[in-house]
Amino acid sequence: MNLLNILSKDTIVALATPPGKGALAIIRISGPDAFAISEKIFFFTKGIAHKIQNLPSQTLHFGQVKTADIILDEVVLSIFKSPKTYTGEDLIEISCHGSNFIQQKIIQLIVSFGGRIANPGEFTLRAFLNKKMDLAQAEAVNDLINSGSAVSHQVAMQQMRGGITNKIKTLRDKLINLAALLELELDFSEEDVAFANRDEMKILVAALRNVIGRLIESFELGNVIKNGIPVAIVGKPNAGKSTLLNALLQEERAIVSEIPGTTRDLIEDEMTIDGVLFRFIDTAGLRDTKDIVENMGIHKALDAMKKSAIIIYLFDGHELSKKDLLIELDLIKGNTGNSEILPLCNKIDIEDLDYLQKEYEGIPNLLFISAKTHLYVEDLRSKLVGMFDHRALQVTETVITNLRHVEEFRQTDNALYRAEQGINNHIQTELLAHEIRIALNHLGNVTGEIASKDILRNVFENFCIGK
Amino acid sequence: MNLLNILSKDTIVALATPPGKGALAIIRISGPDAFAISEKIFFFTKGIAHKIQNLPSQTLHFGQVKTADIILDEVVLSIFKSPKTYTGEDLIEISCHGSNFIQQKIIQLIVSFGGRIANPGEFTLRAFLNKKMDLAQAEAVNDLINSGSAVSHQVAMQQMRGGITNKIKTLRDKLINLAALLELELDFSEEDVAFANRDEMKILVAALRNVIGRLIESFELGNVIKNGIPVAIVGKPNAGKSTLLNALLQEERAIVSEIPGTTRDLIEDEMTIDGVLFRFIDTAGLRDTKDIVENMGIHKALDAMKKSAIIIYLFDGHELSKKDLLIELDLIKGNTGNSEILPLCNKIDIEDLDYLQKEYEGIPNLLFISAKTHLYVEDLRSKLVGMFDHRALQVTETVITNLRHVEEFRQTDNALYRAEQGINNHIQTELLAHEIRIALNHLGNVTGEIASKDILRNVFENFCIGK
Repeated sequence: MNLLNILSKDTIVALATPPGKGALAIIRISGPDAFAISEKIFFFTKGIAHKIQNLPSQTLHFGQVKTADIILDEVVLSIFKSPKTYTGEDLIEISCHGSNFIQQKIIQLIVSFGGRIANPGEFTLRAFLNKKMDLAQAEAVNDLINSGSAVSHQVAMQQMRGGITNKIKTLRDKLINLAALLELELDFSEEDVAFANRDEMKILVAALRNVIGRLIESFELGNVIKNGIPVAIVGKPNAGKSTLLNALLQEERAIVSEIPGTTRDLIEDEMTIDGVLFRFIDTAGLRDTKDIVENMGIHKALDAMKKSAIIIYLFDGHELSKKDLLIELDLIKGNTGNSEILPLCNKIDIEDLDYLQKEYEGIPNLLFISAKTHLYVEDLRSKLVGMFDHRALQVTETVITNLRHVEEFRQTDNALYRAEQGINNHIQTELLAHEIRIALNHLGNVTGEIASKDILRNVFENFCIGK
Repeated sequence: MNLLNILSKDTIVALATPPGKGALAIIRISGPDAFAISEKIFFFTKGIAHKIQNLPSQTLHFGQVKTADIILDEVVLSIFKSPKTYTGEDLIEISCHGSNFIQQKIIQLIVSFGGRIANPGEFTLRAFLNKKMDLAQAEAVNDLINSGSAVSHQVAMQQMRGGITNKIKTLRDKLINLAALLELELDFSEEDVAFANRDEMKILVAALRNVIGRLIESFELGNVIKNGIPVAIVGKPNAGKSTLLNALLQEERAIVSEIPGTTRDLIEDEMTIDGVLFRFIDTAGLRDTKDIVENMGIHKALDAMKKSAIIIYLFDGHELSKKDLLIELDLIKGNTGNSEILPLCNKIDIEDLDYLQKEYEGIPNLLFISAKTHLYVEDLRSKLVGMFDHRALQVTETVITNLRHVEEFRQTDNALYRAEQGINNHIQTELLAHEIRIALNHLGNVTGEIASKDILRNVFENFCIGK
């Protein structure tokens, strides 16, 4: 791949730790000149001018980074010799004091000796190009850094350690075998021999589609794990939606006021409850209004409801009869798909709980709460976790969390579907082989075996600098 | 020192890199159990359970951090064996992926095995207690991290490398010698012998006071280096002060409007020009006003002027006669001390420059500018640097940047002054010896030779966590 040749000729440098002040910062240098550049700026405390190449790999050295005449910092140098490094290239890490000024000066110094500022994800791109990991594993590195809950962390870790890679290898091996038989048939096409038994082939393709189908299905869970379970909070104006969100988030994110119609924009916020990530979406109150901006908010609310896994319907206990509540719940059901609906009776601080429980008897899933005084908020949190942990905990199977992967799997499945139909319709071997090759290509894109520059660019541009 | 005993019994842990997401994060563990705790959570990639104590110091090892059943992260472990470490204790650094979740989980895991979350600056405190550095050097570590300009960086680096320490050692040696002679006199007091010749003593004390006086004086420069040269921008309402500040900062910090009296609060902003740190203070327009809030702003402006090293008096070229300008400049001079005053004629984009240059001929230091179109802003920047670089560049001498240090030096000088007076008045040897001891104590406080718990607490509580 020519990308490899282009990239590995130069030496890249970047700050690898988060920007800002801290006790330490790490500056990473990778590439053919990593050692030569380091020798020009780093001076060993012991005063001996070492050739880094002659020092053992995986060792740490005290010293100073100096320009011509001034000491920039006292640092620790880490030596990682190719090929047993993150990038597969010679790699140096300089651990300096966490001052912005020092970080910038050292990086500038390295650039002045021929280093190039790394692009986002370029260290990991090099690791991929040097076959230290495949593309799905590289993507998992980024997911790992961004993971905010125990479950998303575990899924990313599993993927980084080759979970999807192994799954795909098995699928690919079977498809390659099939493709080989079909190619063989084509080579001997004049003799009209069928090397690949069509019935067996049908069974194999069906089996493959079954596995791929399960992977595609797992994306729904994977997406929820990675981005959080979407929970819409809806209800009439002034039912206390923003107050509930604040109670859940235990902080004041939304503007709470007593004027109905205060919340106009969707407010999203994430919270991890017992290792499960939830994404709460506060919505505009559902009512007819002449305020255009507010009306836009209501449309957004309807849209948010459709995309949510859970819809909390919040209502004011002393304002809604059981009959009206049932009508409202039906209305919501009509506006959504598979979302679970959780009716939530608010303001029990100002209404008698016994009375309310009798009034609303028989409503399924109903919970009572006071968002204002935080009464029973903990019960709501438990209920939310309970509604999903049975699924979130089934992460022993491979789960797809990446939209790019699911698209590639869908394309693979489409090609296999066409192959299946083709077998039924006794199409030519050539066309069948063509579909199998398409399927193989898309599978290969997941792990990057045949990834194009575009795919690589899209994958790595979302990385942080220094990774 | 019992603080040492208390502290070194436990093992501390902290995130050493800035908080937030990044490619890498470093978790630092220091103390007697640093290795034992690490062995419980870190598993070598090669699968061999090593005793860290048996591995060579300053080596790096690939592996995983694991809890009972899940892999938290793939990490690199750095081993630093006591005493050749930052803290002087056994020290481990874990380089993990820069995810908040992972950082927190690893630190929690270390705490579960007996680590304690470090206080701010506690690693450096341990370095101090284990005599890896003195107190002035420890303070310089913090200054180094916070340094935002080339000059402040160099002063902090010089101090960290023992600049003040060496200076104080020379002073102390002389004082200790003097104290010893006085003590000897006291031992033989009945024989009425003067071991320390009073005239020689006077010369020595005067010489010491001279050195200490220069150090105290250097604080004015040191403070300016560390905190920036204060530059007040003053002028009549609507002269364009906020616009000038924005032009200087090359970004929109202040609210710029065409209503006179918009700026009511002082806006401070820092900018490094050619390695010199400036602190710009935009002030309320100088005019009589009935707006109370604005009036408060004007009082603040007068106050800011008094504290500034440079006062930029900004005026609108077509609104002020030369005669009025001279009156205004005299008024400012009367309100300030040693500040340098820089008259700055604004809005040359709407007034003829030739005309203005003739109109204001003979006004010293006068510059012309258009803050709005950025015309000649670069000249102003050069002028500002020129007004100070002759002082800022004289940093080859030891410069005091720390208020605590200057206070100790003042106390030392006070004691020496009393000793000087005492010699003139032929006071008893005992009283003289007392003053010399006071002087020695205060000198010792700078480097922490005899630092109290209170001093240590004050010094280290300003540090960042993990340092």
